[in-house]
Amino acid sequence: MENNKTAIGLQSIAFTNPAYIQEYYSIVGKKEGQGPLGKYFGHVESDDMFGSNTWEEAESSLQAETVQSLLHKAKLEPSSLRYAFAGDLLGQLMATSFGLINYNVPLFGLYGACSTMGEALSLASMTVSAGYADKVLALASSHYASAEKTFRFPLGYGSQTKSCSSRTVTGCGAVIINSEKGIAKITGITTGRLVDYGIKAKDNMGACMAPAAADTIYNNLTDFGRTPEHYDKIITGDLGYVGQNALFDILKVKGYDISKVHMDCGIEIFDSSNQHTNSGGSGCGCSASTLCGYILQQIKERKWRRILFVPTGALLSPVSANEGNTIPGIAHGVVIESV
Amino acid sequence: MENNKTAIGLQSIAFTNPAYIQEYYSIVGKKEGQGPLGKYFGHVESDDMFGSNTWEEAESSLQAETVQSLLHKAKLEPSSLRYAFAGDLLGQLMATSFGLINYNVPLFGLYGACSTMGEALSLASMTVSAGYADKVLALASSHYASAEKTFRFPLGYGSQTKSCSSRTVTGCGAVIINSEKGIAKITGITTGRLVDYGIKAKDNMGACMAPAAADTIYNNLTDFGRTPEHYDKIITGDLGYVGQNALFDILKVKGYDISKVHMDCGIEIFDSSNQHTNSGGSGCGCSASTLCGYILQQIKERKWRRILFVPTGALLSPVSANEGNTIPGIAHGVVIESV
Repeated sequence: MENNKTAIGLQSIAFTNPAYIQEYYSIVGKKEGQGPLGKYFGHVESDDMFGSNTWEEAESSLQAETVQSLLHKAKLEPSSLRYAFAGDLLGQLMATSFGLINYNVPLFGLYGACSTMGEALSLASMTVSAGYADKVLALASSHYASAEKTFRFPLGYGSQTKSCSSRTVTGCGAVIINSEKGIAKITGITTGRLVDYGIKAKDNMGACMAPAAADTIYNNLTDFGRTPEHYDKIITGDLGYVGQNALFDILKVKGYDISKVHMDCGIEIFDSSNQHTNSGGSGCGCSASTLCGYILQQIKERKWRRILFVPTGALLSPVSANEGNTIPGIAHGVVIESV
Repeated sequence: MENNKTAIGLQSIAFTNPAYIQEYYSIVGKKEGQGPLGKYFGHVESDDMFGSNTWEEAESSLQAETVQSLLHKAKLEPSSLRYAFAGDLLGQLMATSFGLINYNVPLFGLYGACSTMGEALSLASMTVSAGYADKVLALASSHYASAEKTFRFPLGYGSQTKSCSSRTVTGCGAVIINSEKGIAKITGITTGRLVDYGIKAKDNMGACMAPAAADTIYNNLTDFGRTPEHYDKIITGDLGYVGQNALFDILKVKGYDISKVHMDCGIEIFDSSNQHTNSGGSGCGCSASTLCGYILQQIKERKWRRILFVPTGALLSPVSANEGNTIPGIAHGVVIESV
């Protein structure tokens, strides 16, 4: 054991033994499939109900089908997975509880709002790098309709959106992390803290999350002693256009200009002007499916050699928001490199 | 690094370097303080609102005060904690998001229903044993009023309870896990799977969780090659009287009689006949506060040398239950020994 030699700076770990991404898969909905990244997803499902009777069950089916396709692609049985690290946005992780039940894998249920894929990758790579497991699953999902019903209004109400609002991505991304070899490796993580700038606008997730993203990126750069250009890309989850501006401003004050290397999954996943998605895509499925499509494809092909992947979460609860509370943010950073 | 030598059997880890429980603290509500374990809790709060304006904020205050007292007892600053592993029962981990925000500690948000303290202890001890951190926090909470409002009806409705129903504990338990020394040590874990026997009764959590508890206990015993009597106690979280009977029956069919060493926090925390708590106490705060009161006191005094602590969770969501879905269970086992 390493006796803390792997811990660096205030919030980071540099893995002595990297954890490898053996395989990845993503499934998204029709609208995501029509977006600019459409061709990179594993599968685009035209039925937004995923053959189910309710929106919540649809998201569970989305998870179950993503894992099935991932295992098929990796030529593995469910029993080869020692743990699953997984979560979603719904109350009490409803989508995950029913989505993974037939795989019979020991489960660590996670909630980090839209940062969940970063949290799952972090714990999965810690587990594998420490030698606790050979192969584990990391997964996150969201569904446009189940999320709108949970956090704002059911789709049937026909609510209008604001220009600063984002559209929850219907999508699931899942990876198998192993200890030996893969198409990419995870060499470090920077775990996020709760950051609250006092914002209460539940239609403006980007503004709520940008301070947390800035905090995690800043700490990653200082903990590892790196400049932004050390990364081919610094990729946030779902800040959207509004949050991206806030992120640049906050980091500039702290002495870092990341504008040359920044990418946001929420901005890339939709063609905002033609798909009418306002500030961009959001939800844990946004960064998870973009990772397990476009991003890992670039790394596999060595177009990018090293990225900082920073899924961003707005800790919005409909109850706390209705009670007048703020919306804190959290963001978890994962350093992914080509092999 | 150990290259998987620590993984044993199907679902367990035997730590090469144990993780130590340096210190513990618990705060509970008035009714819990009046119960048989009252004198063991760190503090009994007579104001069920914990000085707040809403039940959700009350639970956040409960968490914040528990951590403050824990740090005081351990003579530590928040900055000495490298990570927090924490969760609660509310949608989107509301109590945790606001309860821990002022401590500024990198957070892994967890959801395992009432099994969350087992999940938190498992990940915390994995993290410390692997050398990723010197000191981390593991915490779980629940509040009677916020839980009833979330899962059944607000208290003001005056709903009647069934004899099989349980009462959510108002309580929070928190421990500091370190790599060096403490009042107890964590030597192994058995991580639970989702187990669904098709039960839909949201007033009968014990029945929903018993199959998961049986699965985890069975796998702990077989993975480690132990008999029930290897433990001074096998302690489930909140099965209550109804769930305890089911647990005994299921394990007997699998060849194990644990009745001589079994204890359930939900049964012990209230005097059911005089406190009118039906099947017993429940909620993540039930097992967490019983651990951080009565249980760790017994281990510290070496009255018990080795226990299997198995918090049990019913993955009940009000939405999935109203949509006619079953209530799967999950349980996470943690082996705690005296030093």
